[in-house]
Amino acid sequence: MTLDATLSRIDADLPAALDRLMALLRIPSISTDPAFAADVDRAADWLVADLQGMGVAAEKHPTPGHPMVVGHVEGDGPHVLFYGHYDVQPVDPLDLWHRDPFDPAIEETPRGRVIRGRGTADDKGQLMTFLEACRAWQAVHGQMPCRITFFFEGEEESGSPSLLPYLEAHKDRLKADLALICDTGLFESRAPAIITQLRGLLGEEITLTGPDKDLHSGMYGGAAINPIRVLTRILGNLHDDQGRIQVPQFYDGVPEVAPEIRAQWEALKFDAAGFLGDVDLSHPAGEQDRSALEMIWSRPTAEINGIVGGYTGDGFKTVLPSRASAKVSFRLVGTQDPLAIRENFRAWVTAQLPEDVTATFSGHGASPAGQMATDHPAFEQARRALGAEWGVEAAFTGCGGSIPVAGYFKSVLGMDSLLVGWGKDDDQIHSPNEKYDLDSFHKGIRSWARILDAIR
Amino acid sequence: MTLDATLSRIDADLPAALDRLMALLRIPSISTDPAFAADVDRAADWLVADLQGMGVAAEKHPTPGHPMVVGHVEGDGPHVLFYGHYDVQPVDPLDLWHRDPFDPAIEETPRGRVIRGRGTADDKGQLMTFLEACRAWQAVHGQMPCRITFFFEGEEESGSPSLLPYLEAHKDRLKADLALICDTGLFESRAPAIITQLRGLLGEEITLTGPDKDLHSGMYGGAAINPIRVLTRILGNLHDDQGRIQVPQFYDGVPEVAPEIRAQWEALKFDAAGFLGDVDLSHPAGEQDRSALEMIWSRPTAEINGIVGGYTGDGFKTVLPSRASAKVSFRLVGTQDPLAIRENFRAWVTAQLPEDVTATFSGHGASPAGQMATDHPAFEQARRALGAEWGVEAAFTGCGGSIPVAGYFKSVLGMDSLLVGWGKDDDQIHSPNEKYDLDSFHKGIRSWARILDAIR
Repeated sequence: MTLDATLSRIDADLPAALDRLMALLRIPSISTDPAFAADVDRAADWLVADLQGMGVAAEKHPTPGHPMVVGHVEGDGPHVLFYGHYDVQPVDPLDLWHRDPFDPAIEETPRGRVIRGRGTADDKGQLMTFLEACRAWQAVHGQMPCRITFFFEGEEESGSPSLLPYLEAHKDRLKADLALICDTGLFESRAPAIITQLRGLLGEEITLTGPDKDLHSGMYGGAAINPIRVLTRILGNLHDDQGRIQVPQFYDGVPEVAPEIRAQWEALKFDAAGFLGDVDLSHPAGEQDRSALEMIWSRPTAEINGIVGGYTGDGFKTVLPSRASAKVSFRLVGTQDPLAIRENFRAWVTAQLPEDVTATFSGHGASPAGQMATDHPAFEQARRALGAEWGVEAAFTGCGGSIPVAGYFKSVLGMDSLLVGWGKDDDQIHSPNEKYDLDSFHKGIRSWARILDAIR
Repeated sequence: MTLDATLSRIDADLPAALDRLMALLRIPSISTDPAFAADVDRAADWLVADLQGMGVAAEKHPTPGHPMVVGHVEGDGPHVLFYGHYDVQPVDPLDLWHRDPFDPAIEETPRGRVIRGRGTADDKGQLMTFLEACRAWQAVHGQMPCRITFFFEGEEESGSPSLLPYLEAHKDRLKADLALICDTGLFESRAPAIITQLRGLLGEEITLTGPDKDLHSGMYGGAAINPIRVLTRILGNLHDDQGRIQVPQFYDGVPEVAPEIRAQWEALKFDAAGFLGDVDLSHPAGEQDRSALEMIWSRPTAEINGIVGGYTGDGFKTVLPSRASAKVSFRLVGTQDPLAIRENFRAWVTAQLPEDVTATFSGHGASPAGQMATDHPAFEQARRALGAEWGVEAAFTGCGGSIPVAGYFKSVLGMDSLLVGWGKDDDQIHSPNEKYDLDSFHKGIRSWARILDAIR
């Protein structure tokens, strides 16, 4: 049997593969919102049944949060673990979607056919590209290309609280020779990309409390401290005029990009103007002495992801609120220590509090940046396989996102990870109208078949 | 017939008066939220019927917003206009109420019996004290104490957009010798207070837009400008370290308190520590070279009444939002010009915008501060009448709130206003668990009977 037979099978089975993906997309598995817990569970059940349908011994494993789906299939050659996540982001603001986020459909667009819906690109569509490649291989060969462990998480979009304890408790179940992770994208929406470095992520939620109840600003305004005033004053100091983050010791462990990596990046000829222009921006907003590519791949960030306080409905209310709060996250690089930064950030906020205002903090995830093992032979094998599928040389790139599981696989299981994925810059993941190109889905399945053929 | 007969009638009729108030309180007349428009209208109908029931020729008059209720009754002596408002504030955060805000009840508390519910103190309970005084007078005397125009507004809590045009269009209908306004409180919850000066109010809503859609902070974080970062930076500059407001020319027209007024205020021996301690604060937060009483009566303020942007639900979402917005209000004193301050504020915000961020503004009300005609004979008559009811000398005081109607009565109708009211500092108006002391309601009705007797 040749690789071509598997690729032909993939092509012929595409309509059925899309039907399966649509069924998974219809389950609103929003992990961060407790109201959707039963739906997250249902998505796990769907995946267990799908794996079992292709002969994989699969089970749903409970955690203190949402379940893990784990499946095993024997085979010759190396043992790989495939990781994807079946949970999705919340969908608000819902009024900006042009269709129900959980009633997915294929739409014609000026840039081609897309699958529209929450989770299409992040990460159900990507997860299914690997499953469909395995299904086609199994159909053609009567067996899988190698020994495979399937490992699907349901908490990736809510900080993966159960992941690390689960890995530590189930090392034997999960240890393989290499992890394959499909949760990233193409470089500039055109070239296959193999990730060489990932940013870490630290989440912090701050709540400031001033008066013990909401007050009337006519009666108390002027004399009573307003916690929104304090919160804006502190967070307004998070960056200096040059975009540098002001938390003490924040830049400890931030390396300069190595000259050979810098040379590779320069060869990519990143289109910063196009990247920003896609979202109606023109000016890179980070540290003003850095390039846009450094800002998103190799420099740390601080972002206020949410802020709320006082009256935010229609009209006006002259309230002087008791509380105000914000969600702040930091993307980390190099050897920045998430726990040290958490401590320094909290101390920095606390030191700026005026009399009568108290702060409470809660943490949401803390994962260091990751560096991939690019000298592992699978990296070069995958690079060649991807070039053959996409007709353009695959690039070794950085990634501004945070995929903590890759770091955990290394630190807990001693397992290297190969991160590839088929997302495009305009997929609008985490935003309204998320989509996944039909082309990404189809070529993604074919890419996995080629990678499995190359590394087995 | 003597005043005593009217006071006795008021005492005897208190249970029925409470029943009437409860019926009005049950109507959720939240004027700022369009979802409650029919309820606001229903509250107007209730008042029309109640006035008609005591022989007043009353009607509901439409406006582009919520209706005005106007009633007239003939009588001897001076012609007074009584003003109150029948709309109420929103009730959020609803989870902090210990009962349904629109299912009012009398509760026993350590400080005495209170009427609990939205609008009890602001302003339905206060409005009804005047109506009940008139009802008792009518029952005892067979006629009203003087010629009275009743004028009730349904948009006071939403910036009174229809008030000024309505006054200008209906001068003949509304002109009287003196306006009586019941929307203020006792001094330190114990002494009757006659207001000598009111702060003005300017409301502004700002929305900043950066990228044209919400973005993933992993993909764009660092390179794309975050409008929350810009909003906090700008609003964090609204006050300097000493609590002074930084908008250019903001203090133009802010007078120093005249020595004789300052002497009166000092004689009141305002308990700043108790005032702040009631809401768990200890430190006056305004301009650091001013007393707490100046901060709330004679100094202007800038408050952020609401702020929102990004993800504010449970859990965490690493979104980089497209938009962030805030509601900011200014309390004004002396001859500060609201329209000039609006213009200066907008220019000040705009000048601080970085590349790629745009601001849109919308205004919510703009009323100057007011100075009352304390040499009008009714002021001294009312002061004596109130002293007799409360057993403690009435005070001439400032008021930190904004009751724009008093300024409009003067500028449009040439009519002076006497502002008295029975609210207490712990009434929690505009906040969860709003209440009105049963004592305020009862003595308030009696106070109006005494004032009407004194000024007729």
